[in-house]
Amino acid sequence: MIALDEPLDHRDRWAPITAGEVPLDRVPDRGWHALSDLMLPVVLLRETALRHNLDLMARFCSQHGVSLAPHGKTTMSPQLIARQLEAGAWGVTAASPAQARIFRAFGVRTIVIANQVVDPLGLAWMAAELERSPGVRLCCLVDSERAVALMDEALAGRGPLPVLVEMGLAGGRTGCRSLEAGHRVAAAVRRSRALRLAGVECFEGVVSEPGEQVDGVLRAVRSLAESLGREGAFDQVDEVLVTAGGSAFFDRVVEHLAGGWDLGRPVRVVLRSGCYLTHDHGAYERLSPFGGRLPDWEPLQQALEAWGLVHSRPEPGLAIVGFGKRDVSYDMGLPRPLRVRHADGRQRAATGMEVFRLNDQHAYVRLAPGDDLAVGDRLGCGLAHPCTVFDKWRSMPVVDDGYRVLDAVRTYF
Amino acid sequence: MIALDEPLDHRDRWAPITAGEVPLDRVPDRGWHALSDLMLPVVLLRETALRHNLDLMARFCSQHGVSLAPHGKTTMSPQLIARQLEAGAWGVTAASPAQARIFRAFGVRTIVIANQVVDPLGLAWMAAELERSPGVRLCCLVDSERAVALMDEALAGRGPLPVLVEMGLAGGRTGCRSLEAGHRVAAAVRRSRALRLAGVECFEGVVSEPGEQVDGVLRAVRSLAESLGREGAFDQVDEVLVTAGGSAFFDRVVEHLAGGWDLGRPVRVVLRSGCYLTHDHGAYERLSPFGGRLPDWEPLQQALEAWGLVHSRPEPGLAIVGFGKRDVSYDMGLPRPLRVRHADGRQRAATGMEVFRLNDQHAYVRLAPGDDLAVGDRLGCGLAHPCTVFDKWRSMPVVDDGYRVLDAVRTYF
Repeated sequence: MIALDEPLDHRDRWAPITAGEVPLDRVPDRGWHALSDLMLPVVLLRETALRHNLDLMARFCSQHGVSLAPHGKTTMSPQLIARQLEAGAWGVTAASPAQARIFRAFGVRTIVIANQVVDPLGLAWMAAELERSPGVRLCCLVDSERAVALMDEALAGRGPLPVLVEMGLAGGRTGCRSLEAGHRVAAAVRRSRALRLAGVECFEGVVSEPGEQVDGVLRAVRSLAESLGREGAFDQVDEVLVTAGGSAFFDRVVEHLAGGWDLGRPVRVVLRSGCYLTHDHGAYERLSPFGGRLPDWEPLQQALEAWGLVHSRPEPGLAIVGFGKRDVSYDMGLPRPLRVRHADGRQRAATGMEVFRLNDQHAYVRLAPGDDLAVGDRLGCGLAHPCTVFDKWRSMPVVDDGYRVLDAVRTYF
Repeated sequence: MIALDEPLDHRDRWAPITAGEVPLDRVPDRGWHALSDLMLPVVLLRETALRHNLDLMARFCSQHGVSLAPHGKTTMSPQLIARQLEAGAWGVTAASPAQARIFRAFGVRTIVIANQVVDPLGLAWMAAELERSPGVRLCCLVDSERAVALMDEALAGRGPLPVLVEMGLAGGRTGCRSLEAGHRVAAAVRRSRALRLAGVECFEGVVSEPGEQVDGVLRAVRSLAESLGREGAFDQVDEVLVTAGGSAFFDRVVEHLAGGWDLGRPVRVVLRSGCYLTHDHGAYERLSPFGGRLPDWEPLQQALEAWGLVHSRPEPGLAIVGFGKRDVSYDMGLPRPLRVRHADGRQRAATGMEVFRLNDQHAYVRLAPGDDLAVGDRLGCGLAHPCTVFDKWRSMPVVDDGYRVLDAVRTYF
């Protein structure tokens, strides 16, 4: 087994390209313009939108008496995660022990691994981290008696590791499909030496519309938590965690889970949205509660933009632009043309344009008849699904509304 | 404008996760087993397949008298690119000046930027690199008179920069759509002060089957090169570059372009395949000439495998495995289950299994009735489209046929 302090990843000592690099903390001094001083393509983050979204989500959580553990997998960026914590987030969500390990290296002290963990190396790391770091909180999910047995075996008397029973929805992803199954798993956890029952969880965001599937799994979470509470199943913990919520249906989570608890001890309801920070021009724009199902709240603002140069106008009505699948998300929608900056500096809306195909390094853009988009012009696009944008970049500039570079953030995938 | 020696990317000085890391050159000493000593998920490279593929492609190029400039965008890995050069590659292909800059940092001396370059910063970097590094060869493509004008303006008397006229196919990507257009662009290049006409190029791999579109654009490349040669258009260069060839149709490239030239000076025919190195379980498996349209040549071998743990068996016939869109390619086919390693170490073929959906961090696997795949088992999958696998990992282990870790390679996206 590897020593867990020695990850294979992150930074090796083969270092041929350090000469002349710019330290992150000197980026703000440069006065760069993102569209003329950086090699294109670039994906940038708009500071105004980030600040708006941080504030909006913090106010929403505060008003509803719920905690936020934003999903750190979205950005994997210590600088952005630090801003989420500064804005009042209670902790950070991770998808795996590997991600949690990176967050611990960033100094995060409360981490919900919103996933099953049956990897012996991951479990050993979690146990070791809890032993060596007083005040650090880590927990993960469990949805089967077999997982409980494997975890018990891997932990070999270490722990106890706090776990949440995961409820799921039929046709969905992980999670118990019935309250009976949830109770069986909870009972197995209570019998295990290595685990401690700390709460109940679901991820309702595996479906694409709000409705009975979402409401049903949230009711199941509440029902299981209440029933386990009556049995005294949470007697070993100071507070019970009840957590759900991607970025699409957190209004439903609050409706079902915020408040009204009587488990004989405090209940902390935790939302885990990740994509609220940057929002998107795609599914989250369509599904976000803010400004839609919650009309009293302003909408989120889109923070992500990809910019590339027009490389070619090879046929009438077709432009080939210099970004592609290596640069932008494409799994939940293609980039949406927003703005043109002509080679002479003139700007206009990208009216009538559509990205209809991506290659690795190229976008195919359909133009309205007579459009004067020319080789050498710059095209800015909105992006869908932030998670699959961040994982393509090791650093991204943060810009003001005039595209001045204010800062750059690093990612650690 | 930024000083081009000071990239924003690669390595900053914010460094909280260096403690305990393993230097790359000590990885071989560890004796790790990739499926039990590394946190999962992992995507690994099989050394036997890499070696086979390197050797096969080198023999093919040698036998046909063509040069190889493998597309470095596929892996962006200095260690793998070094092995391609050691196996006889003439140069390396890049998709952009940003990639070329990274390859130069690795020490690559001959780089074909197989793309239009109209970015003033990219052009300035190319000119500066040619000025300061005698013996370094860089070139890029051009497909419009407007691009020639923009390049001339951006280079402002520097250069001359060698360029290849790009031919394209109707309904395809970049490239001149007719010989007349190609001649017009070549004439503009010859009039420009900053550019030097060095050859002709196409990328025939934008279609999904061999056939008349592929053959047509290759005939156009040959025809344009011969006609320009007769005009004396290459009189300023010592050798003419004629280059084409992704990983799917290089047999057609060789058929049309290898040999038979009479341009009054040497002609170097350059293939640019990138995916041959790892091959795939997808489109390249179906389209690769080796073993198929070239039955006298052995097939390439698949080098890439993703391994993850079974996290959940939430419903009959369904397993949820711990890798997803953050870990594997999904743009040209989903992962293909190959092998199971049960928690007790027993191995078997992944018969009857199908990955039918990916979330960011999860794979949904359909199982045959009665399959005993259990939580805690490991599932290994083949992957389609190598380019969108490498860009998800900063390091990848290289393993022998028994999954012992021989080495780890870094990527620099």
